[in-house]
Amino acid sequence: MNHLLLKATLLLGSAALAVADPLPSWKETGTKKAIVSFVEKVTTPGSPDYVDPAGRIATFDNDGCLWSEQPMYFQAFYIFDRIKALAPEHPEWKEKEPFASVLKGDVKAALAGGEKALLEMAMATHAGLTDEEFRKVVRDWLDTARHPKTGMAYDKMIFQPMLELLAYLRAEGFKTFIVSGGGIDFLRVFAEEAYGIPPEQVVGSSIKAGYEIRDGKPVVMKLPELDFIDDKAGKPVGIHQHIGRRPIFAAGNSDGDFQMLEWTTAGKGARFGLLVHHTDAEREWAYGRESHVGKLDKGLDEGPKRGWTLVSMKDDWQTIYPAD
Amino acid sequence: MNHLLLKATLLLGSAALAVADPLPSWKETGTKKAIVSFVEKVTTPGSPDYVDPAGRIATFDNDGCLWSEQPMYFQAFYIFDRIKALAPEHPEWKEKEPFASVLKGDVKAALAGGEKALLEMAMATHAGLTDEEFRKVVRDWLDTARHPKTGMAYDKMIFQPMLELLAYLRAEGFKTFIVSGGGIDFLRVFAEEAYGIPPEQVVGSSIKAGYEIRDGKPVVMKLPELDFIDDKAGKPVGIHQHIGRRPIFAAGNSDGDFQMLEWTTAGKGARFGLLVHHTDAEREWAYGRESHVGKLDKGLDEGPKRGWTLVSMKDDWQTIYPAD
Repeated sequence: MNHLLLKATLLLGSAALAVADPLPSWKETGTKKAIVSFVEKVTTPGSPDYVDPAGRIATFDNDGCLWSEQPMYFQAFYIFDRIKALAPEHPEWKEKEPFASVLKGDVKAALAGGEKALLEMAMATHAGLTDEEFRKVVRDWLDTARHPKTGMAYDKMIFQPMLELLAYLRAEGFKTFIVSGGGIDFLRVFAEEAYGIPPEQVVGSSIKAGYEIRDGKPVVMKLPELDFIDDKAGKPVGIHQHIGRRPIFAAGNSDGDFQMLEWTTAGKGARFGLLVHHTDAEREWAYGRESHVGKLDKGLDEGPKRGWTLVSMKDDWQTIYPAD
Repeated sequence: MNHLLLKATLLLGSAALAVADPLPSWKETGTKKAIVSFVEKVTTPGSPDYVDPAGRIATFDNDGCLWSEQPMYFQAFYIFDRIKALAPEHPEWKEKEPFASVLKGDVKAALAGGEKALLEMAMATHAGLTDEEFRKVVRDWLDTARHPKTGMAYDKMIFQPMLELLAYLRAEGFKTFIVSGGGIDFLRVFAEEAYGIPPEQVVGSSIKAGYEIRDGKPVVMKLPELDFIDDKAGKPVGIHQHIGRRPIFAAGNSDGDFQMLEWTTAGKGARFGLLVHHTDAEREWAYGRESHVGKLDKGLDEGPKRGWTLVSMKDDWQTIYPAD
């Protein structure tokens, strides 16, 4: 019974914290007030907007919403580093695009082939491993790779205010999910430690997998075949297939999250749509309408009309990354 | 804070129950002892087999494991009833197999076309609706349809001993999942009420879905295209894609569950594989090696060699279905 007592104590402990200030890294702006007001009205028994704990589903985009995404998606850094690491086993890559450009360090040329080239590189670096091998490769990479501008480990470039928001929602009975265009298995390697989100609550893009017996031992192999792209209109579909019910809270930062917020906030009862706008060139990055990564254009125009809350990193956040 | 206090109280309450007898509908046999002994060793801090709560993943097949499956899968009854209900809108079905046989009440002829015919009927009765419309149709069917032999509602033909096992595992910090060959959205309609398993913890076979704006409102449409078959080698794959980690406990009842149990029990540390053998012709059904539904042949031979626990319904269970 001990772990249950412990669990009970932890639950009570986090509730006590929540009463203090659940969002200390959020400035005292209208944004913070809107979040707290929403959470209070859906969790207060007797409130006309009360939602049963089972229905308290909150979904979060990852790139640009829970961690940074500049100068390119962090998973792309993994792909490029992995191509370099695998190059000795693939002498043919020296002559073959887009791999040849990666090996020459020419990122722009490597990405010139668009989605097709990126997909080819993703397959070459995500498939052909068992699930366990893949986890180890990504974990090792996260432990050693550093961001070119900040020098930080990628999984430390996570947003402190969003960590508090996740914890606050969970303390108030929400189940928190990631719904990302990034690779589902890539995300699962660090989501639990970084965000407190377990593997089974991660939804993302995926490649197919197969089950086989290898050297007498059963393994799940990651296969070089696209399964699902969890972006744009794919996000409500991914939510449907994985979660099976409509969220009441959704957070994103780009037009790739538009349909997720649209789907979430079109439901009956109280709903919350949140868009993180990257407005802080000093502490993070400032981009939006014209950005090649994390473009936020339609959301800036349409979001406020639909009652979505825009977060300005610069004006709403005390801090960006967690203190060491 | 009220609901957290309540949660804490419930946690402590279920722990107290667990101390009494977590499995009152299980006879005092070696099977029950094996289950309790496994749960105690993985949940007792300091035990060499201790598993952190995050790793306490338990997966359950549905048909024949959590509810009955004779004389045919209950979802097939839904399909046939639905074809009859939709027939006025499809005059062409009168001349078109396998629909014509269903409308004549000739189940055997309807199923003669094998998997292809069944898939065609599944598409016609599961696709073309929004997720919400589908939920309502299935809910209405469950509320009105009755099993031809027992006269019971299908979602009351669930196994009381398995309900206790699910509750016991959850009280001991496990997260319980369904991993079924049945349709994921079909299962989600009743899994929470019947088994206490929320939609996001249901893995099953699926058809594709699409997101669109219909009459100005966003909807998720179920599409007539196969997405994934969650059976046999598909079960470890479904577990990989949905849950993202290997269970430590898996329960099934047929050779369709073989790979799920194999995958689960091949992991490091303490593992539990459970196979329900339908041995009770009086209170339920008796079948196994030769059955067209829920065939259990390889599992009967190989299971015991691999240390899996065989449950004999007749000898291990006090009761079958819950009392009204």
